[in-house]
Amino acid sequence: MNIPRTSFPRVVIVGGGFAGVALAKKLSKQEVQVVLLDKHNYHTFQPLLYQVSTGGLEPDSIAYPIRKILKDFPNFFFRLASVEEIDTKKNKVKTNIGELKFDYLVVASGSKTNFFGNSEIEKHSMAMKTIPQSLNLRSLILENFEDALLTSDLNERNALMNFVIVGGGPTGVELAGALAEIKKGILPKDYPDLDTRLAQIHIIQAGDCILKGMSAKASQKAEDFLEKLGVNIWKNVRVTSYDGKTVSTDTDLTFETATVVWAAGVKGATIKGLDAEDYVTRGNRITVNEYNQVQGFKHIFAVGDIACMTSDEHPYGLPMMAQPAIQQGEQLGNNLLRIIENKPLKSFKYKDKGAMATIGRNKAVVDLKNWKFQGVFAWYVWMFVHLFFLIGFRNRMVVFVNWVYNYVRFDREARLIIRPFKSIHKD
Amino acid sequence: MNIPRTSFPRVVIVGGGFAGVALAKKLSKQEVQVVLLDKHNYHTFQPLLYQVSTGGLEPDSIAYPIRKILKDFPNFFFRLASVEEIDTKKNKVKTNIGELKFDYLVVASGSKTNFFGNSEIEKHSMAMKTIPQSLNLRSLILENFEDALLTSDLNERNALMNFVIVGGGPTGVELAGALAEIKKGILPKDYPDLDTRLAQIHIIQAGDCILKGMSAKASQKAEDFLEKLGVNIWKNVRVTSYDGKTVSTDTDLTFETATVVWAAGVKGATIKGLDAEDYVTRGNRITVNEYNQVQGFKHIFAVGDIACMTSDEHPYGLPMMAQPAIQQGEQLGNNLLRIIENKPLKSFKYKDKGAMATIGRNKAVVDLKNWKFQGVFAWYVWMFVHLFFLIGFRNRMVVFVNWVYNYVRFDREARLIIRPFKSIHKD
Repeated sequence: MNIPRTSFPRVVIVGGGFAGVALAKKLSKQEVQVVLLDKHNYHTFQPLLYQVSTGGLEPDSIAYPIRKILKDFPNFFFRLASVEEIDTKKNKVKTNIGELKFDYLVVASGSKTNFFGNSEIEKHSMAMKTIPQSLNLRSLILENFEDALLTSDLNERNALMNFVIVGGGPTGVELAGALAEIKKGILPKDYPDLDTRLAQIHIIQAGDCILKGMSAKASQKAEDFLEKLGVNIWKNVRVTSYDGKTVSTDTDLTFETATVVWAAGVKGATIKGLDAEDYVTRGNRITVNEYNQVQGFKHIFAVGDIACMTSDEHPYGLPMMAQPAIQQGEQLGNNLLRIIENKPLKSFKYKDKGAMATIGRNKAVVDLKNWKFQGVFAWYVWMFVHLFFLIGFRNRMVVFVNWVYNYVRFDREARLIIRPFKSIHKD
Repeated sequence: MNIPRTSFPRVVIVGGGFAGVALAKKLSKQEVQVVLLDKHNYHTFQPLLYQVSTGGLEPDSIAYPIRKILKDFPNFFFRLASVEEIDTKKNKVKTNIGELKFDYLVVASGSKTNFFGNSEIEKHSMAMKTIPQSLNLRSLILENFEDALLTSDLNERNALMNFVIVGGGPTGVELAGALAEIKKGILPKDYPDLDTRLAQIHIIQAGDCILKGMSAKASQKAEDFLEKLGVNIWKNVRVTSYDGKTVSTDTDLTFETATVVWAAGVKGATIKGLDAEDYVTRGNRITVNEYNQVQGFKHIFAVGDIACMTSDEHPYGLPMMAQPAIQQGEQLGNNLLRIIENKPLKSFKYKDKGAMATIGRNKAVVDLKNWKFQGVFAWYVWMFVHLFFLIGFRNRMVVFVNWVYNYVRFDREARLIIRPFKSIHKD
């Protein structure tokens, strides 16, 4: 890789998600050279991916060019690259575009969908962790309705209009709510020649409640909201297989469907060289100490979803969400400067700012530390917080315009099949 | 195809472009059944495709779901289908999703890029007639700069930063202007470790002026604007080949480049069954009479780019642009109703509303019938007219927000490689 060596120490960051970008910003005006590697040239605002999948937002409004985030910072280099291996002995990363030596390495590679080793489910179901995946899901949903018009086989038509979401976490809940609103507000107008009342939306949840990480009140209220919207919630049911037609479970229940969205879990996106048992723990995450250092190294770190930092309060590591990632990225930025200045490190303390999920129009649940609330006000808070955390003024404006429009018109206009999923991805 | 027969006559429209949509709207509340077929589920506002290619606009803001345009109209059916053949004897269309009988057929299949039979150029160069093509071009441009960072071969780096546009019509001119503004305003910030002054933009024009269809004044002024922006215009030069590396011409000039955009011409997108010599004329267009009827038929019509309607003023047919398409679509809608009511048909009269092209910030040229002007005011007129003709309030708002943002900030934020072109499309 063509990156000049300067007298500044070089920090290589793998991944431009919440953690990687927060860290890079902290280091931006300091006497370090920062090299950020990512396989996309943009940062993705993952919490809003479900709105891309359901036509509420354009993909471009929740993504932001990484080069632009850091354009005014000297000593910053971005390279579009997939990291293939980390050589911890020679202190270099191997990528598809060549090798690079580092003085400090930060793994911020995030997480990926966890299919728990079931390759049949992986093959046939949809994930929603990246923009291309969300666009694939958008296309599939729309193509299913176009196909439903063509068949005279009632079972097939029903399967095309059935949507099974596996996992009742925030992603599953928010997607189910959005699909329910599409069923109610858009399908009858778009497909007058189809009985869209037959469209069904199912959430299958292995545990005994949805939104497990939130308060009992939030979980119960979210369930009420979803039921009001006509979503079917199946609790204590575990999906065992899906062959592209039938979802089987560990109960008598089966579902005939052309669309399964797998939102049942994520795991750390480990990289060769740091994927051995010595480093990796529960959830495929890399064990780190309170300074985000990887075991056995003083100059190799992990932050965000990929890092498992345990404490009494979080014996299995911090939740794999934006907030811990941003906070760890910022803290590590400060710590790296302390290392360079030969000062003692400060340990990371997670500030839990609460959690929230939106179910639909005027329906959201918010858990703050001392205040838990649901409904219309929660929905405004949810929107405000998401607009605030979006990167870029233009993105905020465009998302805001879309939300106002969607609210006033009960509509979602970005329902275009630009990347036909079936013809490109299916055999 | 599952479309119920009613007592109303059935009008099948092939293509949801400007002509097809204008026609469908005219027929919307009448006693006819309208079936619109298109291989995309959205209408594309083609005049702004170059802004998608250059990161100024999101694709979703210049496309509009066809079902939504016509959602409130009874007796309207849309099917996502490619028409493969027209059987003029049995009065039916054959598509990839089955056959359909028609009482009246309107071919509004538009035009496609004309490579004049040069398959080598077709293989290696980029077209810009559809949203997927524009997104491919956007990705290629961005990928080229990422790749330019990686090579230490100066010739290769220059080739990656050279852009050759073949054809000096509105598409070529507008794209060249946008690329020049990116070179000036965005590249130096995004790629500080690359000498982006080396990036070159060339327009190769076979004739002796650009914007041939417009006034001499507009053409000259556009040329001045482009030269001020640093675009190289090569007139009276004809491209003879491009092998993916070198553009050869009928002069001594050659160009080393990784990107050729072919904007040198379009031809009618004919369909089997109406593609024989009896029907097809210059430019691969279907000859029609003053009622848009195809020769030999009273119930088969062609409108828009695909239709060649000649007159003393337009001996080679009307220009292949939005205005004639919209006017023909509307007129044919009225004529179809006259046919059904057994009234005499009215002949089509083209109202030339003028032409315009934008070159960049504050730089546009406008030819109206009695008034030709250039510069800042022309630029405002250009923007106003394009916003006005965009379909959909949300699209107008989003485009407007983007334009204001881009103007104030000298920026174009939609520069995301969402569909990597090189890894997907190249061998």
